[in-house]
Amino acid sequence: MKSWLDIPEDSDFSIYNLPYGVFTTDTRPNPRIGVAIGNHIFDLQEAALRGLFTSLTVNVEVFLQTTLNLLAASGKQSWSLIRSRIQDALSEGSMYKEVIERFCLVNQKDAVLYKPVQIAEYTDFYSSEAHATNVGKMFRDPANALLPNWKHLPVAYHGRKSSIFISGTPFHRPKGQIKLSEAEPPVLAPTRKLDFELEMAAIIGVPSSIGESISTADAEDYVFGFVMFNDWSARDIQRWEYQPLGPFLSKNFFSSMSGWVVTLDALEPFRIAGPAQDPPVLPYLQYEGPRHFDVRLEVAIQPAGGVETIVCRTNFQNLYWNIAQQIAHHTVNGCNLNTGDLLASGTISGFESGSFGSLLEITEGGKTPVVLTGGAERTFLEDGDTALFRAYAQKGDVRVGFGELKNQVLPAKR
Amino acid sequence: MKSWLDIPEDSDFSIYNLPYGVFTTDTRPNPRIGVAIGNHIFDLQEAALRGLFTSLTVNVEVFLQTTLNLLAASGKQSWSLIRSRIQDALSEGSMYKEVIERFCLVNQKDAVLYKPVQIAEYTDFYSSEAHATNVGKMFRDPANALLPNWKHLPVAYHGRKSSIFISGTPFHRPKGQIKLSEAEPPVLAPTRKLDFELEMAAIIGVPSSIGESISTADAEDYVFGFVMFNDWSARDIQRWEYQPLGPFLSKNFFSSMSGWVVTLDALEPFRIAGPAQDPPVLPYLQYEGPRHFDVRLEVAIQPAGGVETIVCRTNFQNLYWNIAQQIAHHTVNGCNLNTGDLLASGTISGFESGSFGSLLEITEGGKTPVVLTGGAERTFLEDGDTALFRAYAQKGDVRVGFGELKNQVLPAKR
Repeated sequence: MKSWLDIPEDSDFSIYNLPYGVFTTDTRPNPRIGVAIGNHIFDLQEAALRGLFTSLTVNVEVFLQTTLNLLAASGKQSWSLIRSRIQDALSEGSMYKEVIERFCLVNQKDAVLYKPVQIAEYTDFYSSEAHATNVGKMFRDPANALLPNWKHLPVAYHGRKSSIFISGTPFHRPKGQIKLSEAEPPVLAPTRKLDFELEMAAIIGVPSSIGESISTADAEDYVFGFVMFNDWSARDIQRWEYQPLGPFLSKNFFSSMSGWVVTLDALEPFRIAGPAQDPPVLPYLQYEGPRHFDVRLEVAIQPAGGVETIVCRTNFQNLYWNIAQQIAHHTVNGCNLNTGDLLASGTISGFESGSFGSLLEITEGGKTPVVLTGGAERTFLEDGDTALFRAYAQKGDVRVGFGELKNQVLPAKR
Repeated sequence: MKSWLDIPEDSDFSIYNLPYGVFTTDTRPNPRIGVAIGNHIFDLQEAALRGLFTSLTVNVEVFLQTTLNLLAASGKQSWSLIRSRIQDALSEGSMYKEVIERFCLVNQKDAVLYKPVQIAEYTDFYSSEAHATNVGKMFRDPANALLPNWKHLPVAYHGRKSSIFISGTPFHRPKGQIKLSEAEPPVLAPTRKLDFELEMAAIIGVPSSIGESISTADAEDYVFGFVMFNDWSARDIQRWEYQPLGPFLSKNFFSSMSGWVVTLDALEPFRIAGPAQDPPVLPYLQYEGPRHFDVRLEVAIQPAGGVETIVCRTNFQNLYWNIAQQIAHHTVNGCNLNTGDLLASGTISGFESGSFGSLLEITEGGKTPVVLTGGAERTFLEDGDTALFRAYAQKGDVRVGFGELKNQVLPAKR
């Protein structure tokens, strides 16, 4: 398949990808939805108004929204019809080429991306074995790093959605209660251990009902797509507050997501088997077929005015629990999911050095600084630093990427 | 102050209360907002359309909504003007009496209540010292029941809002992973330890911005009012899943709230000092004046077809941390609050037997059954049981109540 558009070979946004987003331009400041293609955005609102989707049996109102929620809620069949039409329209020989060229293309450089979905709620899983092991060793007992429940169920907790922003948004270093020494009472201070957490997040498209349990076989039908997710964390605040009810202020000061939603259809060629699960899981968590995705992930740190240094290379497949299992578990008690729910994977780490998805792991809790290009060292992030995530899948000449997720740390507010 | 309406002396809904809710009737099935007064509802939509609020400098659109969110967001000055006008209109000598009698009164018996606010997010605190101590003894170490952080910060976690329903909604006993014995692997089964948790929840009216920290002095200005809240819990699921990230499926299967939102203005006469806090708290958690509320709480269990038995009598003032402190803590890191956020207190228990707000505490984890009227025993709730909460404040002839919060347990789905 080839597009009539000139798409750079290393572009995340090939004709095989077609991720959805929400954008504005200077001349048209109302958010509208589009698809990334090469260095452009294909304006779906404009395309819909010019009749591109008229002959499809889909609700064309999905193209006139300011978020992707209605499109996400429209379901698998609708997603598939729309994707085919967009792929056709952008492929060589398309009858729509002239209309699209004339009216429906925006240069990505001229666009501002918005949060693509109105987030309903945010659940964060903890599904990477290497990460859970690394953290368990540091926060708890090195000999019993994984708690007894970890291999029986995909551990998760509820996060806060009000403070989830899109790539590009800077934020202030948070303050919180910190223990400077074990013996002293806590102080209120800006965190000294600001960290990123490399995650991927599924966006729920189709809602479920209260009392309904979704099977692993059906679970993926509820998923509209994936984004990159940074579960920013303040490790000193976390250590003091998190028992017995889990992280709270150490996480909810700010989180960030990438702007382009990559669909399951686009990720289809990159399916891969997950790890064997031992002990065997309960029947409701068993699944068939490859349910993990081979997506390469990397994290870079870029100091203010400096160049970036890659500090982590890992892969989305480094999860013990896949999205089908996560959804089956989330709903086994009848908990209902809504369109716009964000189900994040938890920090994705491999077992090898160099593949850890957080500074907590990379620097062994601050003991072993990472050296940046130019010689500066980091244990945790400093003011002015930008954390930068990239994610892409590649097989032969088929490349499907997520773009970038980057946010800069500003000094704490006074 | 006296109303021209005939209000039973023991009514929760006196002229001093005026709680807001959302209701429908058979003949007018579109949700609209109203105020409870005696056995009636004062229909605010109808009243607004008939000019009751025309002369006030408030946004009259707040009365035309299907939820209270816009009213809640309108802020303290607006709340106060509206309350005064409603109180005047319902008091003896009101010039509005005839119009109201003719057009704006609905019998509560003829109305169905809806969830009064569109909930943005739900945070659950853990602010009762007796409860945290009781639970800590059972789930962890009797000698160190309160964790070291507990008296330094109001411990809290994020809950799930999708499964919050209103009083009257029944729900199915949830399934989940349960350990039948320590040695055996978990099984998937309906919970055998279904419990209520007696809580009160603040509803945030005025939103805050990302990066903004709210002081204890300003915190109450953000609060639209309170409701009763039942944080239904499955203790066996909870025990197995909750470490290290807190409760998840043991709580998010169902939660319930009462339908009438009692405002801070109505609770003003019932302010009372909280406990002395030792060790002293950090400056951002210090506060002035009485910030607790003297509201009597009770819980009853009613088996299917049986009569109710009161199993708990306690008081809203049995909290170590008050709402001003909770809000100051929630935002000290810059986390933003939104209109419709629900901030629940955590289970409210006293230290004395008979004042415990959960069956976990009442029955000592299932060891000491509670005997119901008629002789039946309960360790945890059985199918068909209804848990029923009541809450009211009283000082002389001024009574301000919350009505009832009740929900019935249905058998687990197959």
